[in-house]
Amino acid sequence: MSIADSGGLRFWKGHGTENDFVLLPDPDGAIELTPGLVRSLCDRRAGVGADGVLRIVRSAKHPEAAEHAADAEWFMDFHNADGTAGEMCGNGLRVFARWLLTHGEAGPGEFTVATRAGLRRVLPAGDQITIDAQRPTIGAATTAWVGDTSYDGFAVDVGNPHLVCAVASPEQVAGLELFRAPRIDPEVLPAGANVEFVAFDQPAVDGADEHVVMRVHERGVGETRSCGTGACAVAAVALRRAGRENGVVAVDVPGGRLVVSLDGPAALLSGPAVLVASGELTR
Amino acid sequence: MSIADSGGLRFWKGHGTENDFVLLPDPDGAIELTPGLVRSLCDRRAGVGADGVLRIVRSAKHPEAAEHAADAEWFMDFHNADGTAGEMCGNGLRVFARWLLTHGEAGPGEFTVATRAGLRRVLPAGDQITIDAQRPTIGAATTAWVGDTSYDGFAVDVGNPHLVCAVASPEQVAGLELFRAPRIDPEVLPAGANVEFVAFDQPAVDGADEHVVMRVHERGVGETRSCGTGACAVAAVALRRAGRENGVVAVDVPGGRLVVSLDGPAALLSGPAVLVASGELTR
Repeated sequence: MSIADSGGLRFWKGHGTENDFVLLPDPDGAIELTPGLVRSLCDRRAGVGADGVLRIVRSAKHPEAAEHAADAEWFMDFHNADGTAGEMCGNGLRVFARWLLTHGEAGPGEFTVATRAGLRRVLPAGDQITIDAQRPTIGAATTAWVGDTSYDGFAVDVGNPHLVCAVASPEQVAGLELFRAPRIDPEVLPAGANVEFVAFDQPAVDGADEHVVMRVHERGVGETRSCGTGACAVAAVALRRAGRENGVVAVDVPGGRLVVSLDGPAALLSGPAVLVASGELTR
Repeated sequence: MSIADSGGLRFWKGHGTENDFVLLPDPDGAIELTPGLVRSLCDRRAGVGADGVLRIVRSAKHPEAAEHAADAEWFMDFHNADGTAGEMCGNGLRVFARWLLTHGEAGPGEFTVATRAGLRRVLPAGDQITIDAQRPTIGAATTAWVGDTSYDGFAVDVGNPHLVCAVASPEQVAGLELFRAPRIDPEVLPAGANVEFVAFDQPAVDGADEHVVMRVHERGVGETRSCGTGACAVAAVALRRAGRENGVVAVDVPGGRLVVSLDGPAALLSGPAVLVASGELTR
């Protein structure tokens, strides 16, 4: 099915710290969601425009989720803008949860959503939605280059590869030119990496042990306004710099503020999640 | 009125050669369309996302158009993504006309729309919509620089300033890095310019005297997928290179194909115009 013969298809548009998604409510799994239709929907000029598509399907109605139907009524069928299916997306899950909450399909307390990466908890609190994230693992010291300037950092694994680099000030973070992928060491990060540029040690924020300002260049995508796993990677490095393993870190991304809480094996990612519009494709 | 308290506002989304717009049907001029609401609607991550907003108002109901009410039932209240009101937008007028045609508010034959630049004719033909454009005036020879490479061209006035540069091949046009504004001579173009990079003399296209491939960096905006006045400027230069003043030029932009017809004082701009979706802002 392409966008041209999808007239009448109902959708919603929403974002979490400006990581934005087209949501397709499809409880019975009836929509034939081809890679071409995903790409058309995500096209920012010729389509609706988004970083990805979140199809909202009952777990019992989706072959990849049916095993979870007893534990999670809904399955997040997540697709990247390039048409590939995705396992998990932290900001996406928060927006997905917002849709369920708004439509009375889950909550108001804690609930569970099925994803390709397994079951994930959702904890709503007013305009904030917190989700289970993966505990980051800090690896080797390494370097990224932007133009002729090098930035020292650490490889960090959050299920996907990151390189977290220190930058001297928020102004220097703001001034970086991230049109192109930063150059990184393929011996340290053979699969590439999302590269975060971070001003650590920012003025205290209520309820947080550390406060940082960051920008991120995502592998294969370019600069984005927010990255949930990136925020988790940065939080782990911020805490290590402060001489601790656990704590709460406020992470300012271009699209807003995420809060990452690391506590033993647990990692939680919190932030706003908003529905902006509903609509339907033109027939 | 901001996007936050505009819940329920009805909109359409459409594009002409991937120059995209949020359309607000507002026959009685009841919507308080502030610069902040325009910026929110056009925000590609936190809003609906577009290059501009087209409010569809009856001429009789808009103070800037009431004088035209006898000649054009509808006024195109055009706003740029930065919130400023715009006089005219060729691709915008074609999408505006598509909305009127689709809703039985104009056509099917030729009709007239009021704009801040005066009355403009619209000639629909299937999936193509042709509009009155301004005849370009070719000015001084000058140069643009991208990085260390210079490109020779001509200043061209189409109501707004352009610099049309020749590039050797479509592959070289495709390979240009247009992340930043090309550098131009402020003595020749003191108000800046949209800069077009053009491979002339491409293989013949049915019904066209000349065929070119171009990309454009728009003043104050960045690279865009299409530019109606830019296509007109390029067409005038293409015809002059062929030793003529009048003729038909097929202009391939990243978002599709525009056709420009120059004939004495007349200039016509043709191309596709599509409605993609309708929707409403979330309450």
